[in-house]
Amino acid sequence: MTKEDLFSIKTEKCDEAVEQSAKGKWDALVKPIDGLGILEDMICRIASIQGRLCPDISRKALIIMCADNGVVEEGVTQTGQSVTYDVSRLMGVRKSSVGVMTENYPLDIFPYDVGINSADTPEGLIDRKVRRGTANLRKEPAMTEEECLAAIRVGITAVQNCRNRGYGIIATGEMGIGNTTTSTALLSALLGEDSDRFTGRGSGLTDDGLERKKQVIREALQLHRSKKTAEPVTSKEEALQVLRCLGGLDIAALAGVFIGGALCRIPVLIDGLISAVSAYTAELLVPGCRDFMIASHTGKERGTELILGKLSLCPAISADLALGEGTGAVLLLPMLDMAMSLYQNGVPFQDTSIGQYERFGK
Amino acid sequence: MTKEDLFSIKTEKCDEAVEQSAKGKWDALVKPIDGLGILEDMICRIASIQGRLCPDISRKALIIMCADNGVVEEGVTQTGQSVTYDVSRLMGVRKSSVGVMTENYPLDIFPYDVGINSADTPEGLIDRKVRRGTANLRKEPAMTEEECLAAIRVGITAVQNCRNRGYGIIATGEMGIGNTTTSTALLSALLGEDSDRFTGRGSGLTDDGLERKKQVIREALQLHRSKKTAEPVTSKEEALQVLRCLGGLDIAALAGVFIGGALCRIPVLIDGLISAVSAYTAELLVPGCRDFMIASHTGKERGTELILGKLSLCPAISADLALGEGTGAVLLLPMLDMAMSLYQNGVPFQDTSIGQYERFGK
Repeated sequence: MTKEDLFSIKTEKCDEAVEQSAKGKWDALVKPIDGLGILEDMICRIASIQGRLCPDISRKALIIMCADNGVVEEGVTQTGQSVTYDVSRLMGVRKSSVGVMTENYPLDIFPYDVGINSADTPEGLIDRKVRRGTANLRKEPAMTEEECLAAIRVGITAVQNCRNRGYGIIATGEMGIGNTTTSTALLSALLGEDSDRFTGRGSGLTDDGLERKKQVIREALQLHRSKKTAEPVTSKEEALQVLRCLGGLDIAALAGVFIGGALCRIPVLIDGLISAVSAYTAELLVPGCRDFMIASHTGKERGTELILGKLSLCPAISADLALGEGTGAVLLLPMLDMAMSLYQNGVPFQDTSIGQYERFGK
Repeated sequence: MTKEDLFSIKTEKCDEAVEQSAKGKWDALVKPIDGLGILEDMICRIASIQGRLCPDISRKALIIMCADNGVVEEGVTQTGQSVTYDVSRLMGVRKSSVGVMTENYPLDIFPYDVGINSADTPEGLIDRKVRRGTANLRKEPAMTEEECLAAIRVGITAVQNCRNRGYGIIATGEMGIGNTTTSTALLSALLGEDSDRFTGRGSGLTDDGLERKKQVIREALQLHRSKKTAEPVTSKEEALQVLRCLGGLDIAALAGVFIGGALCRIPVLIDGLISAVSAYTAELLVPGCRDFMIASHTGKERGTELILGKLSLCPAISADLALGEGTGAVLLLPMLDMAMSLYQNGVPFQDTSIGQYERFGK
């Protein structure tokens, strides 16, 4: 895929008529208007994405992008880079956190090696390694444009494969030591905001460690800044350049997953910070993607809520989650199942003697 | 049960040593420290309530208290009082919202008629009718002290029955047209706060309807105020009097459920506003109950978040829910299942070559 290919992708529109009919279907059920709140909106959106009043989310996939980040050599993390490989190895046998969490839940997990810093790919992972970890973004661009495009392509293809296998909804996840550093740098550059505001402790840092992380991000932003003043990125070209300089291969691949969701008309769930930044990047690269995204949780890292707000997406979970691997997105799935069950099988007012509720005020 | 019986109930303490060991067990798993955030805390609390490092929440019950409220004659609701009976009838055959939502989820639902304004009890409900709806609290006390105690007793006994049948966790729910009015009045009186701040639209009201509801609550508070100045209620006696004057039979019975949870050492999930006000009342009547409660969601009605804060409880869901029937509490259950799955079967660091993470800063 060339840059021109990427920039020429057009997304379809969601089906607004279906979305409105779906809201009408909710309102016709014996319950207070808007009783399930944000979950009702999510089901309406899923219906409009799939383009049918009764969407099917029974088959669920989780796509996890695993990759290493060269910036780890700057001491911005508690653990060493090898933990990406070690946890991915557990993931390949469904023994990492998200696999164990969902051992009694019908979810198919597809972990990808899109750039783990190892000669081999752990067993059970899909080998799409673009390179063995990115370069150190404090010193040079994290990857070449070609590598960045290749990683995006991995994500798009992953979703196309899911579509061919009949999945109705896709959750996103990642594993990569150092990726709260890359995503915070990327988010700050994309929004033109002071990175210190969002730099958090990731998987745990001392006060000194947090200061070092802040400084590394500031220096990286300085190095790769193309303009004198910090302004929000709006052009596709600039978004791609910022992504390749500051992003990770996991982020680029997840951006591809969000683009793929729009292409294949499959709702894609955003997880935490890394996933949210990937989603925002996807929207810049292929405007309109946003309509095919569902937010799951606010997360512990501060940037998440901000970026979901920029995408005008409302999460339903607020539980200080900070695990990664798509765990937050996956926690939303059974909530959607329950909402869908009511949506599809609830008793309508017209089958009872109860008068339908009206929508007043807020 | 006499008032003296109620006031002499002593709760045991949760097992703090177990709670600490549970946190240690979480920290030993291959994942970031506090990765599942509030859900980790909830599992630790459940362990400490059950008094064992590996608690069992596989058997789940939902107790729903259904009752009518005399204040409905003041025009504070969109629908008539008969809707309580009609929805309860659906509930009895598992066709109301919460029943349909959970048709594919292992949950046993126990709906109680604790005061529906009808001669009969709908089929499928447990008949513990104390009286046919309360009196109009704008004009007189909602119930007598004896009736209030009887309703509390229904809740306590409901939990004891659940314990005898091996349930490990209980969700709370209610159905009763007019019960955001009663619970808002009660919450304002208990906290000594201006009721206008919390009065919401319940299941939907016009601006005029909302103004009327605010006025009715203000007048009720004026009528039943025992002191010149509005101060928070702290004594058991006063809490009971405020409950009987302003509460509903559903609220009194749910307060009994929270007391029963403490007596039987079963974690009880708070749902939305009505359930939260019941929980707060229970804590005033039997101090220490709070330790056996788990918050589920913030809800749409403004008072909910405030009162959960007063109980120092953190909900995990923030989805503008306003349905009732325990739907919000029930949405938390599969999230707890997933967290419990990881807690019990996650891979510890010591089984891998990965060094255990340390807890630094926040």
